Amino acid sequence: MPMLRHNAAMTIATDHELPVGVFDSGVGGLTVLKAIQDALPRENLVYLGDTARLPYGTKSPVSIERYAMQAAAKLAEQGIKLLVVACNTASAVALESLRAHMAPLPVVGVVEPGAMAAVAASPGGRHLVLATEATVRLGAYTRAVRSRDSAARVTEQACEMMVALAEEGWSDGEIARAIVRRYLEEAGDTAPDTIILGCTHFPLLKDTIREVARDGVQLVDSASTTAAAVSRLLDRHAACRAGQAPGSLRLLATDGAMRFARVGGRFLGQELQQSDIELVDL
Amino acid sequence: MPMLRHNAAMTIATDHELPVGVFDSGVGGLTVLKAIQDALPRENLVYLGDTARLPYGTKSPVSIERYAMQAAAKLAEQGIKLLVVACNTASAVALESLRAHMAPLPVVGVVEPGAMAAVAASPGGRHLVLATEATVRLGAYTRAVRSRDSAARVTEQACEMMVALAEEGWSDGEIARAIVRRYLEEAGDTAPDTIILGCTHFPLLKDTIREVARDGVQLVDSASTTAAAVSRLLDRHAACRAGQAPGSLRLLATDGAMRFARVGGRFLGQELQQSDIELVDL
Repeated sequence: MPMLRHNAAMTIATDHELPVGVFDSGVGGLTVLKAIQDALPRENLVYLGDTARLPYGTKSPVSIERYAMQAAAKLAEQGIKLLVVACNTASAVALESLRAHMAPLPVVGVVEPGAMAAVAASPGGRHLVLATEATVRLGAYTRAVRSRDSAARVTEQACEMMVALAEEGWSDGEIARAIVRRYLEEAGDTAPDTIILGCTHFPLLKDTIREVARDGVQLVDSASTTAAAVSRLLDRHAACRAGQAPGSLRLLATDGAMRFARVGGRFLGQELQQSDIELVDL
Repeated sequence: MPMLRHNAAMTIATDHELPVGVFDSGVGGLTVLKAIQDALPRENLVYLGDTARLPYGTKSPVSIERYAMQAAAKLAEQGIKLLVVACNTASAVALESLRAHMAPLPVVGVVEPGAMAAVAASPGGRHLVLATEATVRLGAYTRAVRSRDSAARVTEQACEMMVALAEEGWSDGEIARAIVRRYLEEAGDTAPDTIILGCTHFPLLKDTIREVARDGVQLVDSASTTAAAVSRLLDRHAACRAGQAPGSLRLLATDGAMRFARVGGRFLGQELQQSDIELVDL
């Protein structure tokens, strides 16, 4: 499945050299990017955060699908060998449309890998999904888990304040614990076997969730499970980059390079400068 | 200054009958709409919430100005006699451009009325502005207060988590108090004379702010001060509606009628149905 850059004037690259494209509504998907970077340090990566239109989590499915299509098209323009939809909301709403539209480009979402990991961690278990309003409303995790394990029980809880916590950098401390505690109470399932972090912002709150949740609950972080899925897919297509050179990274955003650098640095776990971010229009 | 509906096929209305247009990035401006409704119950009102692109508070000035222009043009298309920019961020970024662009339509923002009220409440006083990141970054309240009162001292504090609190409906209780307390501490000015609610979401948190702030501090709510400014302007232009019939209300949004109805109802103080909201494209 050879894939060429769209711009014929550019050097035609082989599959191996083309970057993996990662798309999110904002900076949250940088947790997925980081996991891919850790798992596949030699891969070239290009990330697009649609910061002009974030958050997707409170928007309507029609808008979310339209935005996701535009973002995917922009990444395809750059030349990519695989598209990762690092946004749970976009994965829940638009994955099938994206696959149909972008074929033969392989498209990986974050919902399926998260659901698979939850089922593997606790077959027949009770799963609590923490996510945005839009993701919960669509019930994508419930469907994905139950299609693999009909004995599983799944509860989904919308946690918008946890998105704000992560963006504000208040990931630990008493306020974070009180907010997480309240959502876990509102979810009603006080003893789940797994908690699925169904929003890319929530890996930043992992320690706090672990402190508040009952002992023994397993946290399923879709960032690392998605990175593993990407790795398997590249292996299967023999599209992993060879050699020892570290992969390159480009960061694109649709608005607010300064804020992207400041907040995104927390998600990527490394300091970013405004000049590291390229602004693009969709 | 007669102003006609743009659509010539419609009945030509006099100034009096035309609605006052109110624009916000989302549902927050409904607190301003409500104050206008309370002050001027006979006026026809049309509200536009740009819910497809909210929040403005974390976006770049260039994007905010472009969005505000498009929203204003959409309201002008409906035929309005006055435009209220009920969004603090859009007022801070784009008021002058909007005035230039929409002339001779009068345009009222929320920053000026809030600053005037604060100066009146405490001449030569210490003012603490609670607002979004974008509003704070622009320092619009500081300029507006100090241009009226050079002896005034102004501190501005970005409070993104308070926006999320109001949207989530968690306006009171221990979590709300802890968040407000933390922002008041971060602001550094522990004894302001006034606290200016520099975001349309914050009137919902008034009671909590009053509980946490020191006794005697005056809360300046730009919703009511803006309504008073609108009332004065209509009086001056003799454009207030006569008669006793209650004014009509239309609600427009660019996305998510269901969420607009659910969250907006809290801001407007009355129950809304999804069918009350007309979706429009910008």
